[in-house]
Formats: sequence, structure tokens, C-alpha cells
Amino acid sequence: VTSGAAFAAVDWGTSSLRVWLLDEAGKVLAERRSDEGMLVARETGFAAILERMLGELGASSTLPVIICGMAGARQGWVEAPYQDVPAKVDTVLTGAIRVSGMARDIRIVPGLAQREHDAPDVMRGEETQLVGAAERLPAGQNIVCLPGTHSKWVEVDQGTIGRFRTFLTGELFAVLSANSILKHSLDGAGSVDPASNPAFDAGVERGLAARTLGSLFSIRAGGLLFDRKPDESAATLSGLLIGGEIAAADRLFGLSRRVVTLVAAGRLADLYERALELAGHGAHLIDADEAVRAGLFAAAKRVWGAR
Amino acid sequence: VTSGAAFAAVDWGTSSLRVWLLDEAGKVLAERRSDEGMLVARETGFAAILERMLGELGASSTLPVIICGMAGARQGWVEAPYQDVPAKVDTVLTGAIRVSGMARDIRIVPGLAQREHDAPDVMRGEETQLVGAAERLPAGQNIVCLPGTHSKWVEVDQGTIGRFRTFLTGELFAVLSANSILKHSLDGAGSVDPASNPAFDAGVERGLAARTLGSLFSIRAGGLLFDRKPDESAATLSGLLIGGEIAAADRLFGLSRRVVTLVAAGRLADLYERALELAGHGAHLIDADEAVRAGLFAAAKRVWGAR
Repeated sequence: VTSGAAFAAVDWGTSSLRVWLLDEAGKVLAERRSDEGMLVARETGFAAILERMLGELGASSTLPVIICGMAGARQGWVEAPYQDVPAKVDTVLTGAIRVSGMARDIRIVPGLAQREHDAPDVMRGEETQLVGAAERLPAGQNIVCLPGTHSKWVEVDQGTIGRFRTFLTGELFAVLSANSILKHSLDGAGSVDPASNPAFDAGVERGLAARTLGSLFSIRAGGLLFDRKPDESAATLSGLLIGGEIAAADRLFGLSRRVVTLVAAGRLADLYERALELAGHGAHLIDADEAVRAGLFAAAKRVWGAR
Repeated sequence: VTSGAAFAAVDWGTSSLRVWLLDEAGKVLAERRSDEGMLVARETGFAAILERMLGELGASSTLPVIICGMAGARQGWVEAPYQDVPAKVDTVLTGAIRVSGMARDIRIVPGLAQREHDAPDVMRGEETQLVGAAERLPAGQNIVCLPGTHSKWVEVDQGTIGRFRTFLTGELFAVLSANSILKHSLDGAGSVDPASNPAFDAGVERGLAARTLGSLFSIRAGGLLFDRKPDESAATLSGLLIGGEIAAADRLFGLSRRVVTLVAAGRLADLYERALELAGHGAHLIDADEAVRAGLFAAAKRVWGAR
């Protein structure tokens, strides 16, 4: 048994799963990752996967568990109904629901819903990152960008989570790379590095000019006519999609009037920092992994108090 | 043998194939369609497929054949190198190349290339539709829209094919329907009919306002929060993509200053006519099937003269 553990914190996404043991101050004692995301777990069983991972981490059989993400979706483990925006940051986690029939105390944080007929939207997992990032947000009106498969842009103002908008940016990159005519141009490309490929900048500039839809096929034609290589093609596609996302977010949220906070990690943080710089917006970076852990810790404290 | 046939005309696309027997005035004597497009034919053999279909149509063994489309691509039957724009409509077909080693005289019409480093683009098949439509274009500066898997917008001015731009509209609809999170919202949808689904109009309006990228996920969220049905979701996606295409084409070509000609057939003609109307542009409709046959007939006349 790992001594000193107060809670287990779990980020259970669509395609991956991370589990941390945290002490009573929120410090990470142990960590484990898996590809057994919601899509796998709903076939093989959420409880079995979770108990196996907790066992591997040396968690006691009574350690309580707080979970965010797609485990709380209707098609997940137990549905944790959405809370509506606008929602106070410090109350957004009060809706955590308990998984019944388990020996251990397991809670799932609800997602957020924007019930507007013209702009319906939902998030699961990002609300926990927002809670975790909230204390570190600069004063004033913030726009928080959480890039990913489904990028989110969220108004956070004086501790209240307001309007938000999802972009399919990461998913568009994936499906266009794998399932469209562009696959002939991108096959064999490595990961996109903005520092080493000026095609990313050029793509961002065109995306910022709202030219994304009219530029996608140029990736294929550039391969046919100018023998452009997969790395350049991938950088162009990434730039077009991220630039288009930022341009649309700017029209929706007026980025120049706000502080833009980027909650991201790794290569995605590099790409969005560079693209925001090209768009003329500085970005305040918060690590996405730290944010989700801090949010889960805050939720655990809310449920179980000091231990 | 079908008597009176002067040429066989073939439109050989990526995923389908159409063969017509035409008399010396261009009248259709017989027609046959197949799913053996370029992707199938490069596996099973172009010559065998063509000869089988010609046999089924009762074509003589010496009937000459004119072909347009992807059969002329590098990965097709025999590469018919691109001709560059700007290109005169009445000379664009002079580049038809002969398929060697065949008993029958078979020619393939070349595609068109736009060799601009900032906007490379190519077409194969649409150039033949443009030639076929050319005589029926209104006087003055035309913008021709040829919707499809890869929609084309083309400047045609005083008999010269100028700048053009390809949009992945049809392919985006297909890959988002089949391979993205939106498939959960679109599964089971019928074909989109603008006359019966106001969600198409609403989607077009948002697309015209350059809000396509920021509205795609709302289709999924609208299903989750408001139980929107597959037909409505499909109409929304179609409208968002077509509206976004028209908005981008307008920025590129200044549609309000030109005559917009729509070369289309069937449901796509309905969708684009409605979307162009919402955008405030009247559209002059030319049937796409008639256009490609007329273009192939013009090419045949150029190669073989009167017969």
C-alpha cells in the first residue's frame, strides 16, 4: 500500500485514462496511464479496469476515487448529468455523483452544458481543468483555450464559467489525414513542429484570414504540382485548422479585449502558442496535466473534506 | 452493333464510370453506368472494363473512344499531363493523348493545373464540363460552380478558363458523417432535401457568416441536449459546409460582380441553388451530365473531325 495517499484522481477520456494517487496536499505520490479510455472500458468494464490500476499503484481498498471526463457520459460508466453555464467555478464541482454498488467511494464530476438553441455545446473533463486553472488565471475577463481533439474556448470572468465553444480541430486533422484525399499528401509525416516548419506559419496566416475551407485541397495539389513533402503538408494542415479556429474564436469572443489563457501541454502547447503569437495575442500558459489534477483535488476536497 | 454511333464518350471518375454512344450530331444512342471508377479499374484493368462496357452497348470494334476524368491521372490508366490556366476554352482539349497499344483509337483529355505557389490547384473532368457548358454561358465575366466531392469554382471570361479553387465540401460531409464524433448524430439520416428541412437554411446562414468551423460540434451537442434527429443534423452539416464554401468563394471571386453559373444535377443542384439564393446570388443552371457529354463530343470532333 502506498502510504500517505488521501485520494485517487482519475481523468477518464474517450481514448485514454490516467490515474494519480494524491496526498492530502494534492501532491502526486504515484501515476499510471492506459489506453483503456471510455470506448474500451464500456466494452470490458469500468470497475475492473479501475480496480486493476489502483491495485498496481498500491492504493488501499478503501481509498476514495474522484473521476472526471467521459466516464460520466451517457454512454460511459454512470451518467453525471451536465450542469448549465454560466456556472461558478467554485460550485461547478458540487454535482459530483456517486457510483452505486461499489465497496469503495467513487464519485464522477459532471460536465457542463450550454443549452442555447443556436449554439448548443457540452464539455466533459475540461470543466475540471478550468476549476484547477481558476486560481492561476490573471485577474479580469479571461478567455481560456483548451486545445485538443475537441478544442474548447471558454469565457471565465470573476470566477464564473460563461459561454464556450467547441472546435473539432484535432479530429478534423485526424480524419482528413486518415480518411480523405489528403492522406496521399500526409502519409509518412512526423509530428508537426512549428519551430522547424515555416509551412505551419503560412497555414496559420491563411487560417486567420478565414481561408481554411478554401485551402485544404491546395495541400493535395501542392504535392502533385510542386512535390511538397508529407511533413510540409502536415504542417500546412495543422496551421490552416488552428488558424481557422483562432480566427473564429476571435470573432466570437473578441480576443484582443481579453487575456488569453492556454491550458495545454507538450506539442499542442507549442503549436497554439505560436499560432496565437501570429494572431497578435499573447498567451498565458497553464500546464493541462497540472490543471486537471488540481481540479480533481479541489473536487475531492469538496466531497470528502480534509483527510 | 448499335448503328449510327460516331464516338463513345466516357466520364471516368474516381469511383464511377459512365459510357455513352453518341451519333455524329452528339445525340445519345445508348448509355451505361458502373461503379468501376479509377480506384477499381487500376486494380482490375482499364482496358478490360472499357471493352466489356462497349460490348454491352453494341459498339463496333473500331469505334473511337474519348475519355475524361481520373483515368488520365498519374495513378490512372495513362497520364494525360495537365494543361495550365489561363487556358482558352476552345484549345483546352487539344492536349488529348492517345492510349498506345490498343486496337481501337482511345484518347484521354488532360486536366487543368493552376501552378501558383500560394494556391496550387488541379482539376480532371471538370475542364470537360466547362468546355461543354461554354457555349451556354451568359456573356461577360462568369463564375462557374461545379459542386461535388471536390467542388470547383472557376473564372470563365470571354472564352478563357482562368483562376479556380477546389473545396473539399462533399468529402468533408462524407468523412465527418462516417469517421468523426458527428457520426453519432447523422447515423440513419436520409439524403438532404433543402425544400423540406429548414435546418439546411439555418446551416447555410451560419456558413455564409464564416461560422462553419465553430458550428460543427453544435451538431453533436444539439443531439445530446435537444434530441435533434439525424435528418436535421445532416441538413445542418450540409448547410454549414455549402454556406462556408459559398462565403469563401465570394471572398475569392467577388460573386456579386459576376454571373454565377451552376453546373450540377439532381439533389446537389437543389442544394446549391437554394444556398446561392440565400447568399443573394441568382444562379444560371446547366445540367452537369449534358455538359460533360457536350464537352466530350467537342473533344471527339477536335480529334477525329466529322465522321
